[in-house]
Amino acid sequence: MATLSTRMTRALHLRNPIISAPMAFAAGGRLAAAVSRAGGLGLIGGGYGDPAWLEEQFAAAAGERVGVGFITWSLRKSPSLLADVLKHRPAAVMLSFGDPRPFVDEIRAAGALLICQCQDMGHVMDAVDVGADIVVAQGAEAGGHGALRGTLTFVPETADYLMHHAPDTLLLAAGGIGDGRTLAASLMLGADGVLVGTRLWAAREALVKEGHHRAILETDGDGTLRTTIADIARQIPWPRGFTARIRRNAFTERWHGREADLEKNVAVEGPKYRQAFAAGDPENTGVWFGEAAGLIDSIDPAAAIVERIVNEAAFRLERRGGAILA
Amino acid sequence: MATLSTRMTRALHLRNPIISAPMAFAAGGRLAAAVSRAGGLGLIGGGYGDPAWLEEQFAAAAGERVGVGFITWSLRKSPSLLADVLKHRPAAVMLSFGDPRPFVDEIRAAGALLICQCQDMGHVMDAVDVGADIVVAQGAEAGGHGALRGTLTFVPETADYLMHHAPDTLLLAAGGIGDGRTLAASLMLGADGVLVGTRLWAAREALVKEGHHRAILETDGDGTLRTTIADIARQIPWPRGFTARIRRNAFTERWHGREADLEKNVAVEGPKYRQAFAAGDPENTGVWFGEAAGLIDSIDPAAAIVERIVNEAAFRLERRGGAILA
Repeated sequence: MATLSTRMTRALHLRNPIISAPMAFAAGGRLAAAVSRAGGLGLIGGGYGDPAWLEEQFAAAAGERVGVGFITWSLRKSPSLLADVLKHRPAAVMLSFGDPRPFVDEIRAAGALLICQCQDMGHVMDAVDVGADIVVAQGAEAGGHGALRGTLTFVPETADYLMHHAPDTLLLAAGGIGDGRTLAASLMLGADGVLVGTRLWAAREALVKEGHHRAILETDGDGTLRTTIADIARQIPWPRGFTARIRRNAFTERWHGREADLEKNVAVEGPKYRQAFAAGDPENTGVWFGEAAGLIDSIDPAAAIVERIVNEAAFRLERRGGAILA
Repeated sequence: MATLSTRMTRALHLRNPIISAPMAFAAGGRLAAAVSRAGGLGLIGGGYGDPAWLEEQFAAAAGERVGVGFITWSLRKSPSLLADVLKHRPAAVMLSFGDPRPFVDEIRAAGALLICQCQDMGHVMDAVDVGADIVVAQGAEAGGHGALRGTLTFVPETADYLMHHAPDTLLLAAGGIGDGRTLAASLMLGADGVLVGTRLWAAREALVKEGHHRAILETDGDGTLRTTIADIARQIPWPRGFTARIRRNAFTERWHGREADLEKNVAVEGPKYRQAFAAGDPENTGVWFGEAAGLIDSIDPAAAIVERIVNEAAFRLERRGGAILA
């Protein structure tokens, strides 16, 4: 595998600048450990805070150096969870979607790196205020929850802000990074590395049902949308301003734009959603991936995915960069 | 100025891979000519098809080699306009937002290059079907009209499609390209060049009122949104699926999300919109720029903008690319 060296690989002692996204339900310990073994850093998805599941996933990581990510507004509802997880000595804790302040001291005291994922410039300012070690600028291309900024403009604008206000803070690009081209582009934008979700959701080690894995192979980048209907169906009270990017399918065709109706029918529709999700039905539930779907044509082991992204990025930076300047 | 060499610069005999977007009302002949003189290719904004305005703008281009862009669905309403414009022997004609078929033969017969701007993979397939010389993959970050795909994923997915179906077709990235970092990133994604709108909207030569130019300097990338309210206020019947990115201001605060109410009040609100637009009022009308606003802190001559973008991209590709691979 080629070696890509950035401020982040040096600071975190990685062989490549890839961190896996802590995707709720999908990013378990096996996936996180495989990404770390491949030279990046894997994050377990803390999701909505199921302590037993998290214990299992740290066990599945089998002592590999990994981190963990939480949905911040949800973590506030089960504050003891953070202490439980910090006992596993995660290398990093990522907080997304909410005010990081209540958790910062505990994370620091445990010696973990603090990663704050941001969706707009206001979040970036908050992350700098709390002294985040790493800021993730997440664009709307991302699968799952996020907001409206595009990755291409949000990353360099964040880089400018950090240069002026926190020059030692590292910057990751997130949202749409699914191959070596998008990694190389992210590095050109000023990122020190990338957070990869969708491409690693399509890894063999991800906790994703076969029917959902098949669905991503049939979907191009037009085949997703941002919506609130998955959260309505699951009755998960996401704060305003965040939507989830999921696959366009029978479920979104039926309910997107009819949110009030779905809410009225949630006693019937909620269990249908959960049952279809558990079964890996690609049509009648949320199928959680982003626009990078259009760059993905196989389900592979995480190590092979990381290697391919790194080699392709190195090739682009060297050959194409050289040819353009020649 | 550094030299950036791509398939597009070689095919079109340019010194850099920058084409200016044919922004309705803002992209006149002076701006287009300045971009061409700086080594790129400038496009006059054909907009909604005002023949007298277009004559003036070709006169203002003063014989410089420039192209022109049209809103395709609007051009269908005044088909003689294309013939009038082709008399000026534009180097290229760009068609966006609608079926290009009715105009392709006439453009080819005049010896102009055909550029098709696309917002989703379906548009890309149509552009390949009609044999476009250049396909523009425009992401949602763009100012003005566009759709939902993010530039970061849409460009490489389009590159893959072209590689398999039309390997000689050139590819431009559009949407959010406002500096050298975003140009360098676009080239890494597989683009042969970029279409620059917002950054050149903020050029001295753009036909933009001073109040609107001041507004972009005060706006970061969070300060825009995609909406239909500008078209409702102007009573311009844009087809479904397209929205316009404009500045968040008093106008969007008041009407975004209240589209039906605006429609009911258009007899009063329409003239107010147009009056405020003509006056350069930054609050009570559509102010037409994209997410790249967050990368812009000065109104400069177009030549200086092009030079800065090119030099910064060359620096990134060389220095940063080299450091990452070292």
